[in-house]
Amino acid sequence: MSRQPRLIAADWGTSSLRAWLLDDQGDILESRAEPWGIQQLPDGDFAGAWRRIAGGWRTQYPALPALACGMIGSRGGWREVPYVDCPAAPEQLAEGLVEFDTGTGPLTLVPGIMQHSNGATATLPNVMRGEETQVLGALERQPALRDEALLVMPGTHCKWVTVRDGRITDFTTHMTGELFAVLREHSILGRPAREVATEASEAAFGDGLDVARQCGAAGISGALFSVRSRVLAGELAVEHSLEYLSGLLIGEELRSVLVGRDSCPPLMLIGDDSLCRRYRLALARFGIDDVQPMADAGIAGLWRIAHTAGLVSDRGH
Amino acid sequence: MSRQPRLIAADWGTSSLRAWLLDDQGDILESRAEPWGIQQLPDGDFAGAWRRIAGGWRTQYPALPALACGMIGSRGGWREVPYVDCPAAPEQLAEGLVEFDTGTGPLTLVPGIMQHSNGATATLPNVMRGEETQVLGALERQPALRDEALLVMPGTHCKWVTVRDGRITDFTTHMTGELFAVLREHSILGRPAREVATEASEAAFGDGLDVARQCGAAGISGALFSVRSRVLAGELAVEHSLEYLSGLLIGEELRSVLVGRDSCPPLMLIGDDSLCRRYRLALARFGIDDVQPMADAGIAGLWRIAHTAGLVSDRGH
Repeated sequence: MSRQPRLIAADWGTSSLRAWLLDDQGDILESRAEPWGIQQLPDGDFAGAWRRIAGGWRTQYPALPALACGMIGSRGGWREVPYVDCPAAPEQLAEGLVEFDTGTGPLTLVPGIMQHSNGATATLPNVMRGEETQVLGALERQPALRDEALLVMPGTHCKWVTVRDGRITDFTTHMTGELFAVLREHSILGRPAREVATEASEAAFGDGLDVARQCGAAGISGALFSVRSRVLAGELAVEHSLEYLSGLLIGEELRSVLVGRDSCPPLMLIGDDSLCRRYRLALARFGIDDVQPMADAGIAGLWRIAHTAGLVSDRGH
Repeated sequence: MSRQPRLIAADWGTSSLRAWLLDDQGDILESRAEPWGIQQLPDGDFAGAWRRIAGGWRTQYPALPALACGMIGSRGGWREVPYVDCPAAPEQLAEGLVEFDTGTGPLTLVPGIMQHSNGATATLPNVMRGEETQVLGALERQPALRDEALLVMPGTHCKWVTVRDGRITDFTTHMTGELFAVLREHSILGRPAREVATEASEAAFGDGLDVARQCGAAGISGALFSVRSRVLAGELAVEHSLEYLSGLLIGEELRSVLVGRDSCPPLMLIGDDSLCRRYRLALARFGIDDVQPMADAGIAGLWRIAHTAGLVSDRGH
């Protein structure tokens, strides 16, 4: 029996556009990827990019639904999709879908989630677009996480998402990846390292983690400059200084999240292998072992949302 | 009685070169300033810059001593002057002076100070070049601070310097100014604000301070993104978002320095008026009132070092 195409699924973010033709089990029949993130598109030509990536599938299977998640639904994207409120279950995301005509058939966009500020507990507002789909995908793949879990998605903006009873109940954003990038490229901490060949060093990364831990409640405000001063004092090789900086920043993120917690719910890392590995090493340093990483869960999440919304029939899955 | 020139004094830092002709009381006879900081000099032509700023004085008064402080004595400066160790009194700085021939007469450079790391208390190494001269100048102007004081020098790298019995006993560096600049210029937090006219807002600055205070031991790792999310949630005008960012960063610096302190020694702010005003407002928010600011104290510090080193006679001062 040949596998039938059922859904065109896409993850269209800030830096890339990936699309898949999925069969009636949600498995991949064909894959395409282009570096056409919403900030990289020549002339902001969303329609042209979509035609080039999905046009062939559209011609062959004109009736297929198409579903995309990510920054494509933001104000700077193709079509702004209002956020749904937190807490959010798959049903709320399905209700918030927005469909429009692309010129290459209809396209449905997944909404992001907004957590509103809460005066009583001084919660700050937070937003995500794309990560909600990763979370639903992870819960599809590991149903045991639905009761209660903390899902961590390292990256430019690392999201820490709390799940209870299959719903996203709250989340925070840590700009650790962006902080690292701007300090490496534009600060005095990165300048000397840019003039040499940077070397991987788990020891220097670990030193950074340890210093962040030892800073305790003071945080790393007064320790960040040690990326420079330890090089000047001969305690740190300039080739390893960015590893040390990475340790300081990730260490501060973990310290911040874990402070005041007596226990931690089951924890899952989702995303890029090498970054997840860094977070695993760091979590172990903070006494949290046995954290399992999961590669990209976007496809499973898109399939789940398409299903909940009735875009694909009940035959699959 | 006409005032006699006694010293050519200079503060030669990263972004500017300022020089003064001082009389036998250490008062200014003539001033010159050029944007010839060590990172701005065309072709790194230190000798040419010095000739153009001090050559006229040299011709008129060939026997005058010349003394300069700041990054000119760093590895990337004209002549590297080894750091003296912390704790340091004026005598140690005088002993660490380095004189060399510039082609436009001799020039003496003030050493910076290095604080070594201390395994027992996990102190990180720290370095300063230029601020040590500001500190000595402040102690000259306000001798009451010599017993015990905390001197704060806001800027790209804010230094918090503890003084006891007239000596610099320890110090820390907070990269708050540089963090603000790189986040404003190169991060998602600054991008929207760069497209509008930024407006001064003491209220938004205060909000940032309050959020940093409320973060407590968690620090601002999870709050930094609120510069963006509060704009998206309609809680913060994009025109005020950089003020809010400034409040978050300065608030985190103060929280970090003050955490675990039962009391604070007499505190003095030294430096640029508008930045000192920002820190005064912030300190008041943390319950520390009546902090007096002091404008640039470099000239008084250079005079004091010249005196201690015997470069100028005892007649003055």
